[in-house]
Amino acid sequence: MKTILILGAGLSASSLIRYFLENAEENNWQIRVCDRDIELVKSKLNNHPNGVALSFNALEPEQRRPEIEKADIVVSMLPARFHIGVAEDCIDLKTNLITPSYISPEMKALDQAAKDAGIVIMNEIGVDPGLDHMSAMNVIDAIKEKGGNLVTFESFTGGLIAPESDNNPWNYKLTWNPRNVVLAGQGGAAKFIQEGKYKYIPYNRLFRRTEIISIEGYGDFEGYANRNSLSYRDTYGLQGIPTIYRGTLRRKGFSKAWNIFVQLGATDDTYVLENSKNMSKREFINSFLPYHPTDSVELKLRHQMKIDQDDIIYDKLVWLGIFEDDVLSFEKDVTPAQFLQKIIEEKWVLDSGDKDMLVMWHKFEYELKGKKYLVTSHMINIGEDQVYTSMSNTVGLPAAISGKMILNGKIKVKGVTLPIKKEIYEPILEELNQYGIHFIEKEVEI
Amino acid sequence: MKTILILGAGLSASSLIRYFLENAEENNWQIRVCDRDIELVKSKLNNHPNGVALSFNALEPEQRRPEIEKADIVVSMLPARFHIGVAEDCIDLKTNLITPSYISPEMKALDQAAKDAGIVIMNEIGVDPGLDHMSAMNVIDAIKEKGGNLVTFESFTGGLIAPESDNNPWNYKLTWNPRNVVLAGQGGAAKFIQEGKYKYIPYNRLFRRTEIISIEGYGDFEGYANRNSLSYRDTYGLQGIPTIYRGTLRRKGFSKAWNIFVQLGATDDTYVLENSKNMSKREFINSFLPYHPTDSVELKLRHQMKIDQDDIIYDKLVWLGIFEDDVLSFEKDVTPAQFLQKIIEEKWVLDSGDKDMLVMWHKFEYELKGKKYLVTSHMINIGEDQVYTSMSNTVGLPAAISGKMILNGKIKVKGVTLPIKKEIYEPILEELNQYGIHFIEKEVEI
Repeated sequence: MKTILILGAGLSASSLIRYFLENAEENNWQIRVCDRDIELVKSKLNNHPNGVALSFNALEPEQRRPEIEKADIVVSMLPARFHIGVAEDCIDLKTNLITPSYISPEMKALDQAAKDAGIVIMNEIGVDPGLDHMSAMNVIDAIKEKGGNLVTFESFTGGLIAPESDNNPWNYKLTWNPRNVVLAGQGGAAKFIQEGKYKYIPYNRLFRRTEIISIEGYGDFEGYANRNSLSYRDTYGLQGIPTIYRGTLRRKGFSKAWNIFVQLGATDDTYVLENSKNMSKREFINSFLPYHPTDSVELKLRHQMKIDQDDIIYDKLVWLGIFEDDVLSFEKDVTPAQFLQKIIEEKWVLDSGDKDMLVMWHKFEYELKGKKYLVTSHMINIGEDQVYTSMSNTVGLPAAISGKMILNGKIKVKGVTLPIKKEIYEPILEELNQYGIHFIEKEVEI
Repeated sequence: MKTILILGAGLSASSLIRYFLENAEENNWQIRVCDRDIELVKSKLNNHPNGVALSFNALEPEQRRPEIEKADIVVSMLPARFHIGVAEDCIDLKTNLITPSYISPEMKALDQAAKDAGIVIMNEIGVDPGLDHMSAMNVIDAIKEKGGNLVTFESFTGGLIAPESDNNPWNYKLTWNPRNVVLAGQGGAAKFIQEGKYKYIPYNRLFRRTEIISIEGYGDFEGYANRNSLSYRDTYGLQGIPTIYRGTLRRKGFSKAWNIFVQLGATDDTYVLENSKNMSKREFINSFLPYHPTDSVELKLRHQMKIDQDDIIYDKLVWLGIFEDDVLSFEKDVTPAQFLQKIIEEKWVLDSGDKDMLVMWHKFEYELKGKKYLVTSHMINIGEDQVYTSMSNTVGLPAAISGKMILNGKIKVKGVTLPIKKEIYEPILEELNQYGIHFIEKEVEI
């Protein structure tokens, strides 16, 4: 019997746990799941005979090491910053490890030690990063195999609301970490290459420099640039490619309205607003507008931001309740970003029965024998419910399948790695098809 | 004979050194001036019998300590971060110290030690900070003395070009550190209070939220908010004041044009531009604009920034040469801010004979016996030439006069301090009148 240890049983672990349980008997696995909330673990294990609920403090080496030692593989669903400590224990105790997170420089530095220990530390095997790598490399490798010369690679991913649950003017609800939504795009200019030229977009222009993407049957989306597209050149072996661009998808029109908050300074997380502990939404917005003894907050905002009264942007802002007088209560004064987060959490909330939707869209252009071709590859996936969301499925299933492959010896690579090799991504993409996660590729000559 | 040690003989020390030399014989002073450039020191001392030129490394305690020990007072014109080491030596060797810089938390922590050593460490005694404190407290104390209740305090300072030398469309030339001009306003939202409400302006709105100020005989200026106006409440004893606002002055129209660089992301100092070592000004601007196979950089900029072809902003940008193909050469790749600095350094340069101008403008509103009054206080000062600039005079003379007052016992206070007490600022403001640095105060009932 092989032992799988899962650290963390939160939202993103639901589908991962279910996959392991469903395949436990056939593969003779024991699934040990640890979370500080033991009831959460029990609800996810659902009395499965191969499941064991645990509730130790996974952040304490003394508490987790005996469990890691027992296991054949560990899946860390902890916040990304805790992976490194788990990885060091895994190397020490010669236990394989999976994390869905980006490879940090500290993690990368463990490569040789992991190889020496004879283990694999598989990272970036969720949805983004994860499915994006696998689905992109699937096309890139095919183009390279037939001798094509890739000249353009663009890739967009978005965690959105399913069309059947899309009933607000923003066409957006919170299906993932709301703090990340508020802080999206901060921390430095977005960088990419277009036609061989380096291009930079500062935060204050990010939501005005969007690209429109139409997907048949699903309508229009828009993408804004991710912070750094350039690092993917090396990861994907695309050194010298003239155009590389990665971005985040929203429904068309979202960014132009969100940009109002960016311009106001309402997404700033670097300072605390005085007296914000008991501030109304209206006062919050007014703190970013000039003082006037009689002009309304509404007019000042429209004037400062040059929003016509009949602009749909204005309807979106009103719908969010930003001009309302009700007070949001916090335990202590908060940053503008924290205040704004609470405003959106009240409104962009999932109704009962609402489902989420993951959208991924890649565009490739390549040259072959004097002709030029355009390939698009996209995936649209809708969640089952609010436990087995699309986010949970697309993060958890790739990680779980890779776990199976490591345990049954199909993945032989050792060291700190990510799923960009064909022998890894091909079987994973194939199995994901059975779960309704599939990519539609189209190619035309241009 | 008393000994004055001046560390640093750069641009801002010219008037300071001249003042001490002119008053040396009468007061029986020896003026010892140290700079790594001994020729610079000699040129400023001009063979004065009471002057001694030195050239040790003032950043090395072993080299400066014997000189500090010899001195009755030290004036540190070193970059602000080096004051603290000098201050520690001064405490140790019981020598008074003057710096024109803001009191850092580290400096503040030395207060008791300085008192125990029986010395004064006088800070913030240049122009801004310095003259701003003194001229504002002069009005504030007068209002308080007659029982008035101050409700508004606004204060603006700008280092500009004199009207007779003002011959470019920006009405601006570099009369001070160009790096500070490029980075102005960065590092966090501007904060102030208006009518009892806290107000915040993010960097991307800073140059659009200006206030117009007209000064009789000198025309229109505009002020943009400084980063933190609130700290002055405590310094000036204005706790509870409904409106407090501090800002930086430019000629009207400057900010709207400068804002184009802010919006583009061209003032960003947080990352290095790829291939910028040998990049043309045109390529630099294009790196912040979308790719297009045929549209010109000019049109893309006008379109993105919504600048009409006949807008004066556009003339300003063209005048700066930003669309030109000439390559700016750097030793290595630079940040956008560093690249932009080189562009402005080429154009906003002082011609021979050009003079600078310091402008300071305060506005006060107070209530007394049921009536409301408006007081303005302003200073306009024009430099003598490019050595004895207005910046040098307004920084150096207050510091020098305070030095005289410390040496002759008129300033009795000990510890780490700044010039906000009447017994300090009043004689300094009075003596500054003789040097053409004077404030014009006006009061009206409103």
